[in-house]
Amino acid sequence: MNIRLYNARIYDPCKKEQIMRGEVRIQDDKIFSVIREGDEPDEGFVPDREIDCAGNLLMRGFNDAHTHSAMTFLRSLADDKPTPAWLREDVFPVEARLTDDDIAAFQKIAIMEYVSGGICSVMDMYLRPDVTAEVFSSAGMRAVIVSGLNDFTSSTSQMEDEYKRLNFYHPLISYKMGIHAEYTCSEGLLREVSGLVKQYGASFYCHLSETLSETRECFEKTGMTPFEYLDSLGLFEHGGGIYHGVHLTSDEIRLLAEKNVSVVINSASNCKLASGIAPLKELTDAGVNIGIGTDGPASNNSLDMFREMYLTSVLCKIRESDAACLDAVSILDMAVSGSAVCMGFDDPCVIAPGNRADIIMIDMHKPNMQPENNIIKNIVYSGNPENVIMTMVAGKILYRNGEYFLGFDPEEVYSDCEARLKALTGN
Amino acid sequence: MNIRLYNARIYDPCKKEQIMRGEVRIQDDKIFSVIREGDEPDEGFVPDREIDCAGNLLMRGFNDAHTHSAMTFLRSLADDKPTPAWLREDVFPVEARLTDDDIAAFQKIAIMEYVSGGICSVMDMYLRPDVTAEVFSSAGMRAVIVSGLNDFTSSTSQMEDEYKRLNFYHPLISYKMGIHAEYTCSEGLLREVSGLVKQYGASFYCHLSETLSETRECFEKTGMTPFEYLDSLGLFEHGGGIYHGVHLTSDEIRLLAEKNVSVVINSASNCKLASGIAPLKELTDAGVNIGIGTDGPASNNSLDMFREMYLTSVLCKIRESDAACLDAVSILDMAVSGSAVCMGFDDPCVIAPGNRADIIMIDMHKPNMQPENNIIKNIVYSGNPENVIMTMVAGKILYRNGEYFLGFDPEEVYSDCEARLKALTGN
Repeated sequence: MNIRLYNARIYDPCKKEQIMRGEVRIQDDKIFSVIREGDEPDEGFVPDREIDCAGNLLMRGFNDAHTHSAMTFLRSLADDKPTPAWLREDVFPVEARLTDDDIAAFQKIAIMEYVSGGICSVMDMYLRPDVTAEVFSSAGMRAVIVSGLNDFTSSTSQMEDEYKRLNFYHPLISYKMGIHAEYTCSEGLLREVSGLVKQYGASFYCHLSETLSETRECFEKTGMTPFEYLDSLGLFEHGGGIYHGVHLTSDEIRLLAEKNVSVVINSASNCKLASGIAPLKELTDAGVNIGIGTDGPASNNSLDMFREMYLTSVLCKIRESDAACLDAVSILDMAVSGSAVCMGFDDPCVIAPGNRADIIMIDMHKPNMQPENNIIKNIVYSGNPENVIMTMVAGKILYRNGEYFLGFDPEEVYSDCEARLKALTGN
Repeated sequence: MNIRLYNARIYDPCKKEQIMRGEVRIQDDKIFSVIREGDEPDEGFVPDREIDCAGNLLMRGFNDAHTHSAMTFLRSLADDKPTPAWLREDVFPVEARLTDDDIAAFQKIAIMEYVSGGICSVMDMYLRPDVTAEVFSSAGMRAVIVSGLNDFTSSTSQMEDEYKRLNFYHPLISYKMGIHAEYTCSEGLLREVSGLVKQYGASFYCHLSETLSETRECFEKTGMTPFEYLDSLGLFEHGGGIYHGVHLTSDEIRLLAEKNVSVVINSASNCKLASGIAPLKELTDAGVNIGIGTDGPASNNSLDMFREMYLTSVLCKIRESDAACLDAVSILDMAVSGSAVCMGFDDPCVIAPGNRADIIMIDMHKPNMQPENNIIKNIVYSGNPENVIMTMVAGKILYRNGEYFLGFDPEEVYSDCEARLKALTGN
């Protein structure tokens, strides 16, 4: 299908003139051409569909580098509680009863929230990767599935099997090796995983240094900080990423840069669970690649990249007591291409011919985008999901003006989920 | 005009069963009756208009207890800068050139942003209170105007004149005595204001203890902290409120409670300018009334009470290292009735007969409001302005489903503001 998006403004972070007027032409899942206003259009492109963008902004969509989509079922179920009690009393007991169909249903709510807020892809860690692969690919959304292996769930042979299968399952789906976290895996298990990482030349991902107690316990047990410990076992031989990274030492930050390991910032979740504020300035100064993730709706509780960008920006300013710390363009870049790098995408996050047609349209006619003193700052400091009026993934429009094109009906999903929740929680 | 809002869910924070199904009947600017589903409707109410709420939630609207509406012209004009440079280089020079018509035009953008995000009233401090009174009352929005008197702008006689006039100008408008801040007023001026406060029995408002340097300088100059100093001059004899209150001592917090002075939390602005995190837990423990304000778009940069509620909640958790600190209901209460108390409204912020018809409708059919494990937590932790699908002030619908009923055209306001900005900044 050929789509022509005309009368647009187009954001290209790599160009000096970052925003230009013109049109974007899509062929199937890729960007075919980008035509500046006044330039001659390329010949031989016959659009099947033409969309007047009314001067609104086209940009590459957000990539959510850490989430647990199915956990919508836990949204607002337990908040304002200490984390251990929250996990023990509210999360684990319900999770133990989840069926594949439950997971699929709860993921659909998340997918609606992602696409209506301009998120084109997610890096998702949860039970039953096969369900995730099926649900996301059917909806037309991009997902990088990460193993959440630990002493109680999954196994290295299962992970190996998933790695071999799911990386060839569907063009929208990829799979990465990973574990839940250092503190939920025995050293034996970690050594097994390390063997697979080396065998396949695989990048590796996990939750790391989210809480202070977790880093202390690791040090007491191993004499090393969590990243040093996992790295000593060879897990980051081929790069990868860590989620949260709130309590990192300067040595760990140097090592992260050296090993080409990304850090995914989860600002909302880290605040809401009172885990702390990540050392973002030190990380960027050290040259570590930064992605941004929403984390799951159990702890955040929304899946809103605008709120995440804002929080990531202002928490850095408050941590450093410096209003000049990190500019808006850098923050937007983390939410788009920083996340993409972490997720292992080889596609540059730029609207240019040959690149992925993962594009969103920002409504510039809303009052929070006015006046247009600086469009990127407007997006990062004033934007919210209401500003997203179109989300396209791989050339397919999944969301436009409040309507979803995901192959399922929102109201049916809501009532299905409510019924499943009743059955699961007995309320 | 009689309006019937039926097939709704209605939030009443004072009832044990906080959310009930039923309908709300509006007569002119007041709530006429609230009818629980299944109960007999009251006779003699003939609606001029009936709105099917489709199971969505009706609640009292947000009250924004501190803002500078006209400063939309500075949105994204200068960010990521230290505060003094930002004020000196970007704010003051442009402000000096503003005309009444400029202020009116820029305020209209803010009003659209308020009502589309569920804000029914604001406490606004800016130049030319008469302009503010005219613009807000014409649009149908409620405003409490606060004098921003200082050594360079306005005078006590002007404030006295405005106090006497604007409190009788229009039912939607009231006026409070105030100053910009301790550090922009001489002691002579403060004593004059204190005289007026006593003469009229007026509550008093100002920016206070926003930055550490400001509190230090006050102490060096007067031997007192800012609140102690202003209180020693008798300014808070009849209560009032302070904006920001980031750097408060325990003695000041006790004194605030004793003097019945509200603190307005401005989380986004305080983070973005790296001012700090207010001691919210200590303030609530001491029994101080708390309102929430967006502050102006120059420093925030959006006028979004959802983001403000979220930030206020999670910053408190992070400051106290306690995920259980302050629950969602308390936060929502600050944004609605805490702000209203600070603003001097005598109307209880409950949907009940005789109360003000300042009501918003929250769309429960959006994915971020699903599932409905806990509706109030969904609003506070997952909500965003997109969830607001109707805003009614004084019985008049000002916003519904993306459309504004404010007496002006959004696109005309945008282009008018762009033209004015060009003239002001020379760009």
